[in-house]
Amino acid sequence: MTFDSMWSAIEPIGRAADTGGYRRFAWTCQDAMLREWFAGEASARGLDLVTDRAGNQWAWWGDPDAGVAAGRAGVVIGSHLDSVPDGGAFDGPLGVVSALAVVDALRAKGFAPSRPIAVANFVDEEGARFGVACAGSRLITGNLDADKARGLRDADGVTMAEAMTAAGHAPEQVGPDEETLARIGTFVELHIEQGRALIDLGRPVGVGSFIWPHGRWRIDLDGEANHAGTTRLQDRRDPMLDLARTVLAARAAATALGCVATVGKVRVEPNGVNAIPAHVTAWLDARGPNEAGVRGVVEAVGSQGGSQPVEESWTPETVFDVPLAQRLSGLLHDAPMLATGAGHDCGVLATAGLSSAMLFVRNPSGISHSPAEFAERHDCHGGVEALTAVTEELAR
Amino acid sequence: MTFDSMWSAIEPIGRAADTGGYRRFAWTCQDAMLREWFAGEASARGLDLVTDRAGNQWAWWGDPDAGVAAGRAGVVIGSHLDSVPDGGAFDGPLGVVSALAVVDALRAKGFAPSRPIAVANFVDEEGARFGVACAGSRLITGNLDADKARGLRDADGVTMAEAMTAAGHAPEQVGPDEETLARIGTFVELHIEQGRALIDLGRPVGVGSFIWPHGRWRIDLDGEANHAGTTRLQDRRDPMLDLARTVLAARAAATALGCVATVGKVRVEPNGVNAIPAHVTAWLDARGPNEAGVRGVVEAVGSQGGSQPVEESWTPETVFDVPLAQRLSGLLHDAPMLATGAGHDCGVLATAGLSSAMLFVRNPSGISHSPAEFAERHDCHGGVEALTAVTEELAR
Repeated sequence: MTFDSMWSAIEPIGRAADTGGYRRFAWTCQDAMLREWFAGEASARGLDLVTDRAGNQWAWWGDPDAGVAAGRAGVVIGSHLDSVPDGGAFDGPLGVVSALAVVDALRAKGFAPSRPIAVANFVDEEGARFGVACAGSRLITGNLDADKARGLRDADGVTMAEAMTAAGHAPEQVGPDEETLARIGTFVELHIEQGRALIDLGRPVGVGSFIWPHGRWRIDLDGEANHAGTTRLQDRRDPMLDLARTVLAARAAATALGCVATVGKVRVEPNGVNAIPAHVTAWLDARGPNEAGVRGVVEAVGSQGGSQPVEESWTPETVFDVPLAQRLSGLLHDAPMLATGAGHDCGVLATAGLSSAMLFVRNPSGISHSPAEFAERHDCHGGVEALTAVTEELAR
Repeated sequence: MTFDSMWSAIEPIGRAADTGGYRRFAWTCQDAMLREWFAGEASARGLDLVTDRAGNQWAWWGDPDAGVAAGRAGVVIGSHLDSVPDGGAFDGPLGVVSALAVVDALRAKGFAPSRPIAVANFVDEEGARFGVACAGSRLITGNLDADKARGLRDADGVTMAEAMTAAGHAPEQVGPDEETLARIGTFVELHIEQGRALIDLGRPVGVGSFIWPHGRWRIDLDGEANHAGTTRLQDRRDPMLDLARTVLAARAAATALGCVATVGKVRVEPNGVNAIPAHVTAWLDARGPNEAGVRGVVEAVGSQGGSQPVEESWTPETVFDVPLAQRLSGLLHDAPMLATGAGHDCGVLATAGLSSAMLFVRNPSGISHSPAEFAERHDCHGGVEALTAVTEELAR
């Protein structure tokens, strides 16, 4: 199985005919197809497939527990296979497919690892269905409470526990997973770049330095449903106006404070053409190079009136293992070090104290979370080469 | 069957448990239950039920064609039974239930009409499902093209033709219905007031004078989907900002021009928390006492940038039959004459040249298109008395 043939195999799964974007959400049938594909790739390579308490998949080359016993815990490479709504093909799958190709490349050159090596597929990284990003890595590290996770509901009211059960995973197993974590000596996640730094630098691969502090907030804007034709302007309580002010306040504050802020999701009730809305719910995503700036954006949005933002998630600044990042950069011909505004499972593991690093592959569109997300095939192969060199170095 | 017992009979149909609002949309099973109830009430009174080409129901007391032949076409009273999403109990049903109660009241006093009398139930007045208000009356008057109507789609992609077929109505019948229109000598629609004029005046019943010109516009705001965390502000094309400016521009222009303008419905794609939207669609509802003002609001919204509003419907000012309105006002102890910003089937018939009038019943909440819409039972009975007096006068 070459990189290219694996890529072709998963390309149609969960791709929407109308937009060309991907809809691969946790514990759906599309997700099951991808998990089955992953299991098949592991089996074809004679890797031992382990599914942990949260449902993350680990395909082991070598005995992970023997590695732990010998004080040489494993080198884990991989990423995730799920997507945001109408997401691109690369965010997640590039890291998983590349990791499988690395196993092939190491074996082709007769490499004999001194540590076990695993390819990981983290479940529910995007949080597209239940609203919490990196659920798989947060659950095993205890960063997300198991009961809270089981009770999260999707847009149809289905709980994560129900969705897991329907997909054949036992939700009562979910919780911190020390055994799984102990097996990880180092985790390296390869990912499509979600910005333009590598284009500007003319480099195909970069190394992650740190992840910006970031969070999500829910903003509930109350109004009074009434007839759009017969209600005088002065008698209205129209929460759509509060939404408008919220969106503009978020942008203005982010500009002033050097952060980014986005209102990407909105729910309007009852959402009728001729009815003043009774209620609008908006979600604010805010990130920046430092916590004070991000908190300032949220404060400015709250003081705009309407309603105080309710924090749904918060991730402080995550600094990856600095000596490791420097070592990888050196190994890759002084690959540039990049900070990023995106959260990743790799960041969750780093926060939990595990040695973790990221490699980024150049994205000529600079676009992510969209069907326009792209990487040249040549750069994908370059990413596999880089990850192969890194894995060889770490498992030597 | 008293007014109160009829009201109780339909009260649970289509009421949502979570909001207490009504979801009674055209050609759904809730609609079928209401139509069956109407047919049963007609049958219980020995009225002859006729369903016209568009699916409007007419319950006749006396032979409508004999009336036409004698140059004494019928007196029609009634309204509609469908609702907006999470609408109130009164908008529509108050007029139908009151009209049935009027038949009972006239018979109880031994009245012998010299013209046939009908109670009408217009189909799909709110346009909540297929987006075109007053579809039933527009279709029979030719104001809405039959092919266009058959092809309208609901949010699930079901066409009106498919929905009609599923509900047992033949969509190929749909079209202008001269036979039905010829039977209408005068139409009087009783309706809950959708504002506060009668409260301020201390009067239980008013008479409609004219309907404001009004329309609906669709505004397509294009952006570029991208990652909320990694895309620099200066690299973004975020249509949520255009939505915000559109909403504020609509309110500012409406205030300046003495109109009302509402953005009550919005669709965001892909609507993900961590994705800059690729596209936002907003619908603008604008109305006012004169066309120039309304057109000015739409122009101001368009020049705000983003996109030119696309007209989905337009209804010019509708003046009801002035001598008839004055006659009814006099009959009802000089009931106040009220202009309204809401469209009605009565307005569609007036536009088609039929003699039409409206009675409004006081609404102490001043709220409509909401579960908070309300009328005191005493005022409902007062409405029945007024409509009885009017019907007796017209059919004497």
